[in-house]
Amino acid sequence: MKAGIIGATGYGGLELLRFLHNHKEVEEVGLFTSSEEGTLFSSKFPHLTDLYNKPLLKIDYDALAKYDVVFASTPSGVSSTLFPPLIGLGPKLIDLSGDFRLKNLASYETWYKKPPAPEKIVEKSVYGLTEWNEAAIKKAVLIANPGCYPTAVLLSILPLIKHRLIDPNFLVIDAKSGISGAGNKPSQATHYSEANENFSIYKINEHQHIPEIEQAVSMFGGVDINITFNTHLVPMTRGILTTSYAQVTEGATGKQLIDCLTAAYEDHPFVRVIQEASSIGTNRVKGSNYCDIYVKLDERTNRATIIGVIDNLVKGAAGQAIQNMNVQFGLPQQTGLQLVPYFI
Amino acid sequence: MKAGIIGATGYGGLELLRFLHNHKEVEEVGLFTSSEEGTLFSSKFPHLTDLYNKPLLKIDYDALAKYDVVFASTPSGVSSTLFPPLIGLGPKLIDLSGDFRLKNLASYETWYKKPPAPEKIVEKSVYGLTEWNEAAIKKAVLIANPGCYPTAVLLSILPLIKHRLIDPNFLVIDAKSGISGAGNKPSQATHYSEANENFSIYKINEHQHIPEIEQAVSMFGGVDINITFNTHLVPMTRGILTTSYAQVTEGATGKQLIDCLTAAYEDHPFVRVIQEASSIGTNRVKGSNYCDIYVKLDERTNRATIIGVIDNLVKGAAGQAIQNMNVQFGLPQQTGLQLVPYFI
Amino acid sequence: MKAGIIGATGYGGLELLRFLHNHKEVEEVGLFTSSEEGTLFSSKFPHLTDLYNKPLLKIDYDALAKYDVVFASTPSGVSSTLFPPLIGLGPKLIDLSGDFRLKNLASYETWYKKPPAPEKIVEKSVYGLTEWNEAAIKKAVLIANPGCYPTAVLLSILPLIKHRLIDPNFLVIDAKSGISGAGNKPSQATHYSEANENFSIYKINEHQHIPEIEQAVSMFGGVDINITFNTHLVPMTRGILTTSYAQVTEGATGKQLIDCLTAAYEDHPFVRVIQEASSIGTNRVKGSNYCDIYVKLDERTNRATIIGVIDNLVKGAAGQAIQNMNVQFGLPQQTGLQLVPYFI
Amino acid sequence: MKAGIIGATGYGGLELLRFLHNHKEVEEVGLFTSSEEGTLFSSKFPHLTDLYNKPLLKIDYDALAKYDVVFASTPSGVSSTLFPPLIGLGPKLIDLSGDFRLKNLASYETWYKKPPAPEKIVEKSVYGLTEWNEAAIKKAVLIANPGCYPTAVLLSILPLIKHRLIDPNFLVIDAKSGISGAGNKPSQATHYSEANENFSIYKINEHQHIPEIEQAVSMFGGVDINITFNTHLVPMTRGILTTSYAQVTEGATGKQLIDCLTAAYEDHPFVRVIQEASSIGTNRVKGSNYCDIYVKLDERTNRATIIGVIDNLVKGAAGQAIQNMNVQFGLPQQTGLQLVPYFI
Repeated sequence: MKAGIIGATGYGGLELLRFLHNHKEVEEVGLFTSSEEGTLFSSKFPHLTDLYNKPLLKIDYDALAKYDVVFASTPSGVSSTLFPPLIGLGPKLIDLSGDFRLKNLASYETWYKKPPAPEKIVEKSVYGLTEWNEAAIKKAVLIANPGCYPTAVLLSILPLIKHRLIDPNFLVIDAKSGISGAGNKPSQATHYSEANENFSIYKINEHQHIPEIEQAVSMFGGVDINITFNTHLVPMTRGILTTSYAQVTEGATGKQLIDCLTAAYEDHPFVRVIQEASSIGTNRVKGSNYCDIYVKLDERTNRATIIGVIDNLVKGAAGQAIQNMNVQFGLPQQTGLQLVPYFI
Repeated sequence: MKAGIIGATGYGGLELLRFLHNHKEVEEVGLFTSSEEGTLFSSKFPHLTDLYNKPLLKIDYDALAKYDVVFASTPSGVSSTLFPPLIGLGPKLIDLSGDFRLKNLASYETWYKKPPAPEKIVEKSVYGLTEWNEAAIKKAVLIANPGCYPTAVLLSILPLIKHRLIDPNFLVIDAKSGISGAGNKPSQATHYSEANENFSIYKINEHQHIPEIEQAVSMFGGVDINITFNTHLVPMTRGILTTSYAQVTEGATGKQLIDCLTAAYEDHPFVRVIQEASSIGTNRVKGSNYCDIYVKLDERTNRATIIGVIDNLVKGAAGQAIQNMNVQFGLPQQTGLQLVPYFI
Repeated sequence: MKAGIIGATGYGGLELLRFLHNHKEVEEVGLFTSSEEGTLFSSKFPHLTDLYNKPLLKIDYDALAKYDVVFASTPSGVSSTLFPPLIGLGPKLIDLSGDFRLKNLASYETWYKKPPAPEKIVEKSVYGLTEWNEAAIKKAVLIANPGCYPTAVLLSILPLIKHRLIDPNFLVIDAKSGISGAGNKPSQATHYSEANENFSIYKINEHQHIPEIEQAVSMFGGVDINITFNTHLVPMTRGILTTSYAQVTEGATGKQLIDCLTAAYEDHPFVRVIQEASSIGTNRVKGSNYCDIYVKLDERTNRATIIGVIDNLVKGAAGQAIQNMNVQFGLPQQTGLQLVPYFI
Repeated sequence: MKAGIIGATGYGGLELLRFLHNHKEVEEVGLFTSSEEGTLFSSKFPHLTDLYNKPLLKIDYDALAKYDVVFASTPSGVSSTLFPPLIGLGPKLIDLSGDFRLKNLASYETWYKKPPAPEKIVEKSVYGLTEWNEAAIKKAVLIANPGCYPTAVLLSILPLIKHRLIDPNFLVIDAKSGISGAGNKPSQATHYSEANENFSIYKINEHQHIPEIEQAVSMFGGVDINITFNTHLVPMTRGILTTSYAQVTEGATGKQLIDCLTAAYEDHPFVRVIQEASSIGTNRVKGSNYCDIYVKLDERTNRATIIGVIDNLVKGAAGQAIQNMNVQFGLPQQTGLQLVPYFI
């Protein structure tokens, strides 16, 4: 297989490369760029010289058409224009940005403050939450790979919503992310001296992942809701932990909640139901494609605490994208993704 | 004034010393210990030799009686025994542990899993949330200095509850703390290689600050509630940020929420109502006695996000203790506490 | 006293403000800017609103002339132009950049790659290494405040060189700094995700502090040498630790080395000779004006390891500048500088 | 192949497991313990349940004899006793501790302050610096895997010494390590709040890697020397960077130094000669088996700065151990070790 990456110099692109390099079915990787054509990739990342010592390629549809799969790991508003002409030319397409996720184009404009992708293309795109949409992913030409926060949130809450064990009408989701989620472009907020030893909140009630989560809850959970969702910046590089709060349905027990999660994922190797709170932490999944989930009922208040943990750059981006590629190509989901969490 | 500190080698004790050293009304500090009598303080903290180059003193009531104020910065279950014999001997007493905070002794036993302090002493203790209890603090002999989390939570939510702008019946509080809150005793969970680059959750629904917050909401907000409250560990040394979520009362506007907070603290120098979300962060209060608070209404869901930010070792412990001491002794609240946040 | 700061929005400027705010002899601070005239200081640093809630002032010599002291905390190449017209107008001048440090103008051009300050002004400037140049500082109009690295290096090695206990001809200095030394301007090298968990080396043999150290060794140690000097970036915000290596003079003992340091600084409150290696660390001086120094002789090789530790923003910049101001104005050196190290 | 690990719950052991899990020639791994027999490995490391969900095995020579290779990743003083009875029973043995590295038993006692391994066994052991000792490693039964610091130092300086381009008689080596090098046992020095934001020095002139480096310089460089060697603790988890300083031989040029390194490693995939100082950093090798090296001549002083960078847990421990295993078993050196550096 030949895999192309557009936007290879961002953190998502680097992670795609890290995994594809050791993916036994991928024999060639091509790195494409819209702005740095001809730049030697290894001049930007000299420590990756062994992996890829060629110039970045110009985005050219004839060239891209020869790849089996093309990933776009670009800022929002880029693949909405770049990808449509590629449809039907051959390659499977996997977009890591938010450009094809929201079926409601007006919603895209509202939350992303950018013009949406063409309606017909968005209609065809398949939401790549692998564990919940495998059948559609298998047949998809264009996959909208989920956002980092939605991945952690949805994998942890969807089974409980689907089985009506929690009341989704007052769902409060408090999300925390490492700073790599902000990408590789320097800014005051990500300047080391100001981000280090600082915990902060951002995009209060305004994160573009809100409509994505709501749409997926509607699609897979069968209920339309408005969530409360906030995002925080943690002084560490990788990792997302989301803490969701909901009233449980009358009569539901803590054991039922846990059993529900366990049953939902028993055939899914990358989602692990954690038993002990002390075993939850972003370092337990770091560098790997795992999503660890956990639920606990507070009998005093009859509310559940539901946790989702991922590496934002892996299961929250490049890892899930490759997992989707594996599904598209009929490979075992774990191919090339069996890296062990670093832990330390 | 002469100030004694019991438990001076813990982080709370070190912070008391840091501030008292530059407190213009305090001319002498004595450091007491229950287990390290005779140890030279500067042998444990050689970089503080200039401040205190004497042996740690044995806890002796005759000696302690000569101090104007005695702070206990000890683990829970210690001052409940140590402090009672000191009552009436002269010194004002300020306890930084949880031993005298809960008026309901059974609740103390349930949450702390230790025997409570004597009932008559607990009855006399005054909860030292300075901005809300100044009159009582002024006359108090024994002050129960608030917990770190309750300080950030209560200062940010109490005005809104008192003025019935939020519905306290589904109050979800998601709290995050730097690792210094775990104290100075090494453990696997605070071992650098495992705590670094790791965001985790702990004591789910089980933190002993839950009944403290509920009691204070009842006392100052006039309503009995059961909160949902979880605590997370952030890979940084200092700082607490709490994110509280509540449905707002019908008709309440975002402006009313902000005005309510502003009015509540206009005469309180250490509580600052923040206007912009981008100005919120634990590094904005680091090393200082400030509590920064913020509220924002999500008109889509009619729910409010309420933020409280403190340095857990200062406003969440030693700083507030000295603020209370100042009130007890009729000094301006800011005496000795005007340190500027480090920021970086 | 009235103190003006040019370049107040940089990290050095913020630290000046942090200390001057609690300096009992300074009743007014004015913040000046060359590029952000009229910007409300508190709009950039909202958490400092209490300290300074006025617009940044335009650099105007009539206005500046009314201050008792003016600090420049600007990038190199700025005060060389800004300061000369102020000479003789009244204020004492303290420059935190390198513009007036090197007496040899050609050397300045070589290492800084910028045009030097006017020769006559440079001649008049006094190198502000307080402990070694107090008499001259007292009478100085213009002080060239030492660089951060030179401060740690010089305070630790000068006594040993002056007393010929080490051979300065093969002096190897390996220096390490926290990232705040790079200033507040975002860049790829200081982007959180790339600076975090990364230890690196920079400016190999090329740091502009090399000629500054050599000049001071000549001036205070009486010997002309060429040093080997490298600088490393440590993933932390504050702190410098320098490790210097030298062959000791024949017959010199470890005790002589320690005694030499002790004698040199016995009347200097900010330089502490550390006895135990385990007491050395940047967190022992963090936020304070201390310089901790240490020496150990390796009898196996007859070489000495000499350590200097400072907070780069305090003793390495703003703190030493205020110490120099105190000397200029006949105040006790410690005025306004008695902050206790944070440690944690 | 079947691989046994003694000391699997330490950081070195975890890394062995991380790599062996994806090593295509290793079909079974057994984890042995001297003190935690019967403990379920996954109860200690629940996030590794998928990898190994069995109890830790008792150290039993009959059981161990059935493995093809046995690694000991134990503290010093353990394998000196555990390994000798295994010699000749079948498995190849690889010791990650210092117990079999020093040929001079008296030196071991002096530096390690423990009784040495039996002389006859030490004589047979082969020093596992793969790039310099491959022929001997191929035939070795017992490999003494190099220490973390010596690996970075030796790979960077040996070619220059061997070719007499630097004068080894005044070799100053300033080494810096992430905190994972201290192992997994909590202590005050590795307690998060005290290690974080702190750069410190330890074991001044006293590190047990000193005689190991000197022995290897003698063995591979053909010259007996006494080095100056100090070690520092960097507030990050992984990574070692060593900065070595030496006078270059008269007439040697910077280009000769670089060419010498390049030629030495042209056939060695894990040692990379770096061209630009800005490409040097511990994050460039993190998680991988690479050793990055660099040299620069300072023409002003005729001294060279020589850099070595590794991940202390990989090339400095588990990675090099597996590289040695590959050599012993006639596999390509890179088998199972092709993980891409994480970078961020």
